[in-house]
Amino acid sequence: MDKKIEPRTLPGFMELLPKEQIAFNQMRQAIQKSYEKFGFLPLDTPIIEKAEVLLAKAGGETEKQIYRFEKGDNDLALRFDLTVPLAKYVTQYYNDLSFPFRRYQIGKVYRGERPQKGRFREFYQCDIDIIGDGDLSIIYDAEMPAVIYQTIQSLGFENFTICINNRKILNGLFEALGLKEQSVEIMRIIDKIEKIGKDNVVAMLEEMQIAKEAIEKIVDFLEIAGTTDEKVQALENMDIQSELFQKGVEELKTVVGYVRKFGVPDTHFKVELTIARGLDYYTGTVYETFLNEYRSLGSVCSGGRYDNLAEYYTDKKMPGVGVSIGLTRLFYQLNELQAIKQEQKSIAKVLVIPMTENIEKALEIGASLRKENIPTEIYLEEKKIKAKMKYANHLEIPYVILVGEDEINNNVVTLKNMVTGEQETINLTEAISRLRD
Amino acid sequence: MDKKIEPRTLPGFMELLPKEQIAFNQMRQAIQKSYEKFGFLPLDTPIIEKAEVLLAKAGGETEKQIYRFEKGDNDLALRFDLTVPLAKYVTQYYNDLSFPFRRYQIGKVYRGERPQKGRFREFYQCDIDIIGDGDLSIIYDAEMPAVIYQTIQSLGFENFTICINNRKILNGLFEALGLKEQSVEIMRIIDKIEKIGKDNVVAMLEEMQIAKEAIEKIVDFLEIAGTTDEKVQALENMDIQSELFQKGVEELKTVVGYVRKFGVPDTHFKVELTIARGLDYYTGTVYETFLNEYRSLGSVCSGGRYDNLAEYYTDKKMPGVGVSIGLTRLFYQLNELQAIKQEQKSIAKVLVIPMTENIEKALEIGASLRKENIPTEIYLEEKKIKAKMKYANHLEIPYVILVGEDEINNNVVTLKNMVTGEQETINLTEAISRLRD
Repeated sequence: MDKKIEPRTLPGFMELLPKEQIAFNQMRQAIQKSYEKFGFLPLDTPIIEKAEVLLAKAGGETEKQIYRFEKGDNDLALRFDLTVPLAKYVTQYYNDLSFPFRRYQIGKVYRGERPQKGRFREFYQCDIDIIGDGDLSIIYDAEMPAVIYQTIQSLGFENFTICINNRKILNGLFEALGLKEQSVEIMRIIDKIEKIGKDNVVAMLEEMQIAKEAIEKIVDFLEIAGTTDEKVQALENMDIQSELFQKGVEELKTVVGYVRKFGVPDTHFKVELTIARGLDYYTGTVYETFLNEYRSLGSVCSGGRYDNLAEYYTDKKMPGVGVSIGLTRLFYQLNELQAIKQEQKSIAKVLVIPMTENIEKALEIGASLRKENIPTEIYLEEKKIKAKMKYANHLEIPYVILVGEDEINNNVVTLKNMVTGEQETINLTEAISRLRD
Repeated sequence: MDKKIEPRTLPGFMELLPKEQIAFNQMRQAIQKSYEKFGFLPLDTPIIEKAEVLLAKAGGETEKQIYRFEKGDNDLALRFDLTVPLAKYVTQYYNDLSFPFRRYQIGKVYRGERPQKGRFREFYQCDIDIIGDGDLSIIYDAEMPAVIYQTIQSLGFENFTICINNRKILNGLFEALGLKEQSVEIMRIIDKIEKIGKDNVVAMLEEMQIAKEAIEKIVDFLEIAGTTDEKVQALENMDIQSELFQKGVEELKTVVGYVRKFGVPDTHFKVELTIARGLDYYTGTVYETFLNEYRSLGSVCSGGRYDNLAEYYTDKKMPGVGVSIGLTRLFYQLNELQAIKQEQKSIAKVLVIPMTENIEKALEIGASLRKENIPTEIYLEEKKIKAKMKYANHLEIPYVILVGEDEINNNVVTLKNMVTGEQETINLTEAISRLRD
């Protein structure tokens, strides 16, 4: 073999060292467990689909970013989210499913974005959705914050805020002010309020030739503050001539009420009236979630209510509500900030090290430990003891069991705690009970 | 929306209904847990790699089957196994890894095979490998059957056989008989012995113009029978003039000895001298595993020892040993045979059903159950009780908690076992302890 190929991973594709991968998997596992605690059913749809199926709705950026290729006569593409495959799935298997259909899916999706720091072309999404057949109770909108609350906690974070809004409120406001056409642009300006301040927002709205009265209404709206209930009250008091707006306020009030009943404390959620989450998909409740110590991450769990999941595939009306965590990006950012809450740094809890040529005892001990469900590795290379200990250290295996001549003769083991450095020579049963703690 | 796209999944791509997906995930989870019990570290490499990296070694069938496409200026491909990405990985991150490097990877791979029943274009492989730096103790070859033994048991099977051989024995035999060039063809004939019988094998070897004496040696070899130790003894007694053969017998004897020390009983492994597993990759010990009640499945877990994992990327010699389970195919076949051992058929353990318009109590109960880590779903649609029970039945949720006027007033719940039909009205604490059992 002369010519060697350089082993390189493509830019924009995350590939982790084992220790990081353990941390990543723990987060993934925690999310899955949390989703399952709410009874969401698992799905695992193909990564490759027919391009026409994936692109039924797409256009613009999505279409440009998609990985699309031919194989034989087939025009294929890699999924760019988990929502389109869900829409396909519920249409295709409609008769086999029970509604409301609650599913989670954790899987890789693909977008050929320009590679830049913290942006990935292959990344995990962790989605939950509840899909109704014809209609779906608004109370399910209140379940989402409960799932978010549990899930973010299960990732080891306590200080976070789930922000809730309702798209009908914003849409109704713009409709009542005769600003429906300009709503996208107005939202873009409003979004900057925290950065540029109210006066600059007003100036920019004036530049758009928006009537003074309308700007005043918008400013009134933006100045709504206080507790969750005070905000709802202020919305109810606003004089906005729009059924849509009134409907939005009513929905928001209902959702907020039930969110509390689902066990989410007021310390962890609030109404945030400027959250819109893009303008064409969501139709009701929307969510964003912020880690308060790491606001720069942006929202770590977002989603909302939509009226019609599968309209590109079927006439059946299937409204739904869901949220998603972009795990790859979240992991990357937290890792950069050294904010990963990693409970366990190694897979093996103990490394059994034979100290003599007679390794039989070490193998027996390993088998006994595994029988007790203790993840166990046995070191079998003939190396000096120093090299063996270095190996355990590098993998951050918390315990080592040394099996030498004396241990074999006296039917004991030497158990060393690699963190504290303590070691004791005890019988295997005692060692097992130590390792179980 | 007028024109609808037909929602179809590509042929050769497995997509399961939730109940099947639960069973699939349980198998996947069992395999992962078993691999982790042996201290293997998790990896998750990209599905897309540079084509030149993936195809460094490939050729023939692999190259024809690969999904390959361009994106921008990049010549890309989807991984077709998990071994090539491992070779890339250990070369790329060599300085960050500790050797022997033990990794597992469970992930999807892609092969554009002609679609046929039970053949998939997207399928999960579940691989473990132990990679040495320069060399790797033969005793690791004996660990593989221990992992297989645990893993297949964890899938719910008791009656299976791990077959072990050593490629040096076959290669040495053919070398000694001057049949090295014809070895592939001879192996193909030998492979048929169970189907066509010894006489037909001899006739076919004669047709190949193989010398009578050589055929006799081959037949002697094929007729080796008895217990594992008798087979090893018979190999030692054979008069084969080949160092390679002698080395193979010695390795096999060593491996067999240690396999027992690793805790694998003689009831679950045997020496099977005709196993070869393709001719160009493996260089020592090889494994195949058969479920004895489902022999038609072929080997469900196979692998072996190789001398040089990453020769296409580096001059460093990295020998390894590993095995793989093709989970998608295995699941499909077992499902067809109704041989899946499914412990749990639903994600939610209990469905809380409010029987009145006042759902607050139901929400509180749900939150309490989840706090106790009991996977709980709350049914929130306004439907008749019959429809709600049907939903629970369809999802095979084992328990239902009914919350009506009486239950609310008396601060109790009605817990119904959906399997036995029994129901009792008890307080929530009692219900939780029932659900925990």
